[in-house]
Parts: sequence; C-alpha cells; structure tokens
Amino acid sequence: MISESEILRSFQHLVEENDKDFVIIGSGDDAAVIKAQKKDLIHSTDISKEGTHFPINSNPEDIAYRSIAVALSDLAAMGAYPSFITVGLTSNKTDIKWYNDFTRGLEKIIKEYDIKLVGGDVTFGDLNVCINVFGYSYVNPLLRSTAKPNELIYITGTLGKGRKGLTDWQNSKQSKYQLDFFRPKARFDMAEFISSFASSCIDVSDGLIKDLGSICKLSNVGAILNYEDIPITNDIKDLSYGDDYELCFTCEKQFEEKLKTKGLKSIGKIVDDLGVKLVKENKIINFTKTGWDSFE
Amino acid sequence: MISESEILRSFQHLVEENDKDFVIIGSGDDAAVIKAQKKDLIHSTDISKEGTHFPINSNPEDIAYRSIAVALSDLAAMGAYPSFITVGLTSNKTDIKWYNDFTRGLEKIIKEYDIKLVGGDVTFGDLNVCINVFGYSYVNPLLRSTAKPNELIYITGTLGKGRKGLTDWQNSKQSKYQLDFFRPKARFDMAEFISSFASSCIDVSDGLIKDLGSICKLSNVGAILNYEDIPITNDIKDLSYGDDYELCFTCEKQFEEKLKTKGLKSIGKIVDDLGVKLVKENKIINFTKTGWDSFE
Repeated sequence: MISESEILRSFQHLVEENDKDFVIIGSGDDAAVIKAQKKDLIHSTDISKEGTHFPINSNPEDIAYRSIAVALSDLAAMGAYPSFITVGLTSNKTDIKWYNDFTRGLEKIIKEYDIKLVGGDVTFGDLNVCINVFGYSYVNPLLRSTAKPNELIYITGTLGKGRKGLTDWQNSKQSKYQLDFFRPKARFDMAEFISSFASSCIDVSDGLIKDLGSICKLSNVGAILNYEDIPITNDIKDLSYGDDYELCFTCEKQFEEKLKTKGLKSIGKIVDDLGVKLVKENKIINFTKTGWDSFE
Repeated sequence: MISESEILRSFQHLVEENDKDFVIIGSGDDAAVIKAQKKDLIHSTDISKEGTHFPINSNPEDIAYRSIAVALSDLAAMGAYPSFITVGLTSNKTDIKWYNDFTRGLEKIIKEYDIKLVGGDVTFGDLNVCINVFGYSYVNPLLRSTAKPNELIYITGTLGKGRKGLTDWQNSKQSKYQLDFFRPKARFDMAEFISSFASSCIDVSDGLIKDLGSICKLSNVGAILNYEDIPITNDIKDLSYGDDYELCFTCEKQFEEKLKTKGLKSIGKIVDDLGVKLVKENKIINFTKTGWDSFE
C-alpha cells in the first residue's frame, strides 16, 4: 500500500517551486501563507468525481487537468483571472505511477495558466478531486444577477464539443473532440475581453439552457434564443448537455460591432417575460423545465 | 433522488447571513468574492472521509462539526485565527433530513468560532467532506521548522481523549469522551496565548510521536520526552494515536513560569541528536519509525 507521504512527495516539487514573494510558506507545514494582496479575492470550490464528472478509467493526467480546468472556468465566468489553487485528492489507486501521471496533469495546467499550487490534502477512497481556485477580477466581478431586458446574449464558442469528445472516447473513436472533453480550456481570454462591458456571465457547465436559465432567474428576466444562430457540434441536445465551459454572457447592443471583431454573433436577446424560449424554424419552444426532458 | 439544488438550499441561509462588508457575493453565483484584507492569508485543506476519519453511521451533525473542527485545528497550529471556510461535500445520502442535520452541525461550528461560510460544492458519491479554512496570524505564523536545541516541549492538553471517545462510541458506552472524538475543539485559545513566544507548533492529529517527529525533522533537531510528564487518558498508545487536536509546541526556558499560569508543564526537551526518544521508568525508548509499530 502506498503511503500518504509518498503521494504528497509526488506533488511536493510543484509547491516548492512557488515564488516566495507570493506564497511565503507552502505545504509541509500545517497551512499555506499567502501574501496579502490589495484586491478582493475571488474563490470557488469544485468537486470532480469519477463516474460522474469524468468516466471510470480516465487517464490520470486528464483527470488532474480536467478537474482543475473546470474549476478555473468558474473564475473566468466571474470575470476573474486565476492566481492559485489547492487540490484535495481522494483516490483508491495504489500504484505510484498513477500519482505521477496525475501530477504531470497538475503540472501541465498550472504552467499553462501560470498559477501556483499552494497546498492540498490526500486521502484514500473512491476517486474524487476537490479543487479550490482563487483569483482576482480583471475589472469587476461579472455576476449572474445583472442581465437586463433588450441586452444581447452571446456564447464564446461552439457547444457540444465536450459531449462529442466523450462519446468518441466511449466508442474508442480517435478524434480531436476528445481533447475538448478531457482538456477543456477555461476562457480567460474572453473573460478579459468582455469584462469591461458584459452585464452578466456564466460558464456553460450544465448546458446553455440551464445556465442561461440561472442568469434569467437571478436577474428576474427571460431570454429568447435563435436556434439557427447558436454554434453547435451535434444536434439540439448540445444546448442542454453542458461540459463545454464556454462563457455565456449578456451585454448592451452597442457592443455588437466590438464582438464581431472576435467573430462572435449574438445568439438571442434578454426579454421581460420570464423563462428561456428557443425559436427554431419559426416555432417557439418553451423551456419550463431545464435539461434533457425539455427535448424528449 | 434528492437534487443538488435541494441540498444547496439547505446550506444557503448560512451563506446569505454573511456580512456584506466581508463577503461581497456569496454562493448562487460562480464564485465567492472576499473583500481584500491587509493581512497575509493562512489557508489549509483537509479531507475527512467516512470509515477513515470518522466511523460509518456517524451522526451527520457530528460529521459536519468534526470535519470543520479538525481543519480549523491546522490554523490554530499555525498561530492563526479563523475567518472563513468553504465546504466540498460528496455524499451518498438521499434523504433531506441527513443534509438538514449536517447543516445544523455546520451552523453550530461556524457560530461557535464566529467564522463565515463563503461557498462550496455538493456531489453524489461515497461520503467525503473536503474543508477549506482561511484565517490570519495572531502575530506571525508558527512553523514546524523552527524548533531549537534546549527549548522545552509542551502539549496543550491531555492525549488519548479522542481515542477513548471513539472506543466508547464503538462499544455503545455513554461517556463524556465521545464529545472529545466527535466534537473536538481547535485550540485557538492556546494558539493566541503562545503565538508571541512559541518557537514552533503543530497540532496532534497523527499522534504526538509522529507530529513532534515532523517538528524535529523539519527543524533538524531531536526530542527527548519524559513519559511521566505527559498527560494521557488510557496508556502509552495515546502518544501515537492522534485524533486529539491539542497543540504541541516548543519555546525557550524563560517562558516556563508564564506557561505554569495556564497549568502547563513541559513534557520534554529539544536536543541536537536527531529522532524522538521517550524516557519511561528510567529507560529510553527510541522511535526509529513512528506510529503503532514502535510500541508493539
């Protein structure tokens, strides 16, 4: 049986690489000490569980990368850039290779996003990765509760790529989409671009209909989407599947031209009438409930 | 099946009670926003797993309380006071009562320590509580790596109470010790008292021998303990069992009188020779390995 300290040793070098001006004391002690910043701290916790958030027998490098990427996506959705993370790993794996592979994924993503690993914990049990992400606003926090009628709705990329990637992986079909599922990108590039003018924002982790529904509910507004304007990969179910980690945001019409420079076209409009509606082939689909059942 | 949003609703009121000057935006959005402080942030992550850290069929109120108390203990061990926490809960329970009971334990401990719940995540799976705690130093961080030869070693309370409490619970024997196991106290009272003069500190979560061993290893020193001076509950195994959450700290001899006013008596001394030794009935026991095997 591999020991907790052996596992912790496989991560240790990542903590020790930290800039001493930022993380004064890293793991090895009871807690990490993070130097005071003059900015409000943005924080989110996200659990990824084997069999729920990623399939059983996923590559451990992918598990680490994906668990952190989806947690970082919550910061992007808040209009924040990432600064540091902690990892709470519960794992039932007994070979050190698994942990070394997991660490490689961890290392890859913290270098890619230039963030620090400041600590964590490890225990034995069903595979479960609890990631804590911390960051700071580009401008001000982008909320879910601040969309207004007549504003335009945007999505930062194509929906359904994650879903197609997972299906391809399950069918042992090699495709570029597998990376969209296992190595999703947190859209900090777009978060930074829109943070000075977007009126509300969310990441599409649970599906566009449900996530836009959250914006509508918390903003006390409704939305009308134009099906033909929404970039999708597979079919209409891409609108409610999730696992895309694109940002769905709203803004005033005056920013339409600015967004065209990034290749973005509005997919709908915020309205007074509550609920999310979809116009498809000139028919209106009403989403009273969110999720799959709306389509079936 | 109970839904994630139903579960989150049972915690929601605790997040909404937060002081708006401190937590600007709480749960319900993608992330929490915590107002900038002028102090270094002390942070620790701690996982408590059913069957490992607390027994199967523990009372959910106790599970919440205990998981948070043991995480807070890491802050006390750093000479820090607690400020806010997040909870990453993985649970396979399907009745809302369980979550309401869990929330009651959560509420009880955050009120007791006057801390804020700023967010979290919930998912289904084997019961696993990942707690993140955040605080600030009373004076300066108390480290593990800064003990020096000739300093005295102290423990803030009696060892083995948690162990006795768990045994009593397993034998269905009512006793006051059950509370020591299920509702341990993080020793912020003592952390504050010693923080201006202790030279190193750790909490006794893994047993005195192992935890003092960590101080010795990281400080590149050794320790000699006097068995007859160590307050215990059961027998010599109390020295290596853990689950006590008392603080073990070192300080210069000049503070001996000051500590006597709190009823504390030194249990040993830091020495140059590496390793942890125990003097018992005038014989020396050498701990080359830590944990149970040293005693058997």
